[in-house]
Amino acid sequence: SSAPAPIPATLFPGDGIGPEIAEAVKQVFQAAEVPIEWEEHYVGDQIDPRTQSFLTWESLESVRRNKVGLKGPMATPIGKGHRSLNLTLRKELNLYANVRPCYSLPGYKTRYDNVNLITIRENTEGEYSGLEHQVVRGVVESLKIIPRQASLRVAEYAFHYAKTHGRERVSAIHKANIMQKTDGLFLKCCREVAEKYPEITYEEVVIDNCCMMLVKNPALFDVLVMPNLYGDIISDLCAGLVGGLGLTPSCNIGEGGIALAEAVHGSAPDIAGKNLANPTALLLSAVTMLRHLELYDKAERIQNAILTTIAEGKYRTADLGGSSSTTDFTKAICGHL
Amino acid sequence: SSAPAPIPATLFPGDGIGPEIAEAVKQVFQAAEVPIEWEEHYVGDQIDPRTQSFLTWESLESVRRNKVGLKGPMATPIGKGHRSLNLTLRKELNLYANVRPCYSLPGYKTRYDNVNLITIRENTEGEYSGLEHQVVRGVVESLKIIPRQASLRVAEYAFHYAKTHGRERVSAIHKANIMQKTDGLFLKCCREVAEKYPEITYEEVVIDNCCMMLVKNPALFDVLVMPNLYGDIISDLCAGLVGGLGLTPSCNIGEGGIALAEAVHGSAPDIAGKNLANPTALLLSAVTMLRHLELYDKAERIQNAILTTIAEGKYRTADLGGSSSTTDFTKAICGHL
Ligand SMILES: CC(C)[C@H](C(=O)O)[C@@H](O)C(=O)O
Ligand SMILES: CC(C)[C@H](C(=O)O)[C@@H](O)C(=O)O
Repeated sequence: SSAPAPIPATLFPGDGIGPEIAEAVKQVFQAAEVPIEWEEHYVGDQIDPRTQSFLTWESLESVRRNKVGLKGPMATPIGKGHRSLNLTLRKELNLYANVRPCYSLPGYKTRYDNVNLITIRENTEGEYSGLEHQVVRGVVESLKIIPRQASLRVAEYAFHYAKTHGRERVSAIHKANIMQKTDGLFLKCCREVAEKYPEITYEEVVIDNCCMMLVKNPALFDVLVMPNLYGDIISDLCAGLVGGLGLTPSCNIGEGGIALAEAVHGSAPDIAGKNLANPTALLLSAVTMLRHLELYDKAERIQNAILTTIAEGKYRTADLGGSSSTTDFTKAICGHL
Repeated sequence: SSAPAPIPATLFPGDGIGPEIAEAVKQVFQAAEVPIEWEEHYVGDQIDPRTQSFLTWESLESVRRNKVGLKGPMATPIGKGHRSLNLTLRKELNLYANVRPCYSLPGYKTRYDNVNLITIRENTEGEYSGLEHQVVRGVVESLKIIPRQASLRVAEYAFHYAKTHGRERVSAIHKANIMQKTDGLFLKCCREVAEKYPEITYEEVVIDNCCMMLVKNPALFDVLVMPNLYGDIISDLCAGLVGGLGLTPSCNIGEGGIALAEAVHGSAPDIAGKNLANPTALLLSAVTMLRHLELYDKAERIQNAILTTIAEGKYRTADLGGSSSTTDFTKAICGHL
């Protein structure tokens, strides 16, 4: 019997510490014999001097073709007219849902020990329209756009996710007491979808109250779904509860079944190239990618090895209070496979 | 020597538990011999059947004349065309800054014991414009309006507050990496004002990162100033860090030196009239009103009596895990004056 053909997946190591943490993923995947063949492309803040390009057609095509990819942190190119690369990728690949599992890591102590929730963020619309202008001298406005179709799509994703991941409740986060039409439409879409999932409990929580509840008792929440900016805010808040963006995975879901997993922390130029970076967020993101590919055994094995290494505490990078290098931490994980 | 003439102040007890907690304030003020004469008006969800009014001209005039007032929780009148009364008061009285001190209460344990910050929220503009409409079928938009004048005004208030309250740092909270024009203008105004206060450290923090930092280490912050919705979200998050809206004071500052202090929690109709409500938030709000009137000794004495009562723990209302009635808790405070 011959080995199954490897699955092609796109890899954008990104900037700063990106290449080092991407290397950690490659090593762990190799040690776990994950049948993935990486297609590596550079996307980041270094502009190709010949073409003036910082985002090539080939990089985008690679994700579109493979339908699955992993991205490291990308700095925003400096200079006129350059949007954040994260936003450009979201738009180009129509990455409509950003999914962030957030759970307490055994053995890594924070003020909270009972966090186990998922934030699902509408990732392309809302406050991120980019539509802003001056109304009169000294008064500017920006437009928040809520389309029914995008709201239904992310709501559908959230309920489907809840159902297929054994989750019991979906909370829609909003400020419809103030933005009755926009957030009101978002809620209306969530309600419509909720009707198709009678086995999932549905509730609506105002964003200010949600943030208060999250810091008081995050165990009250299961799956949260919300418009773009609220998702931006609440996903970072939740990451903070369990230790920060260096520890939390993220995956973007796009049209046509694309999944682009990503570490959402920064590129940390100050420690780049020094073998000090913590690859946990990118590794756990890679695990969400494996689950998306239904490689559940590999996903489980790798996740356990990461969590065990952190829980044991012998090999931890500086951000977690240890003194291990990126490579030693990575070796320790491989040793637990 | 005759006693100084009492200072008139407006009192809106509000709905639900409002009258009971307002009564607690009256008793504590009397026990502390605060030279205030209350002018009480009903503003709330009960509509006068003769005039169909839920907000009388006399109530507004009372605050405008006295320039100082205290409000309890107000439910939103049910029926077509009724906005939240809180919003109506903000608009009518031009309450441009909402100031919420947030500090850990000695002896009342939460996950955090080092919180001591002030959120200052622009209270009239931004995402609360009420301007929303359908663009095409299935697409709605809402307008966030950032005027230079309102931004300068709240920034000025924040820096002045920092300076006069011995605070060292002002952090402007924003999402100008996405909303470059609107939040960009807000930041520009903060920077302009910051230049006039070289003794105050000024920094800018992106809202998602701010929320993460707040839950990881709130001691990083001192005074925070921000547009309306961010203030709504962050002030509730901060209240959650120290125990919730039942414990945190709030004061609204308006044009012409108006100060309307308020409890920002709900009217709790389920426990209304049962002598179970916790008057702490309204009492501490009343204390901010006294400071506004420069009655510093009275303010200090009352605040100490409240905090001592809570710290001792013998008399606590149910929301704080005790079994005291509103009146017994209030008596205990009076006993500590
Ligand atoms: C970097 C920034 C543009 C981005 C966002 O606001 O979405 C980031 O905060 C995120 O959550 O991915
Ligand atoms: C009740 C609601 C309209 C209000 C707001 O959004 O401002 C409340 O949350 C507050 O903070 O006072």
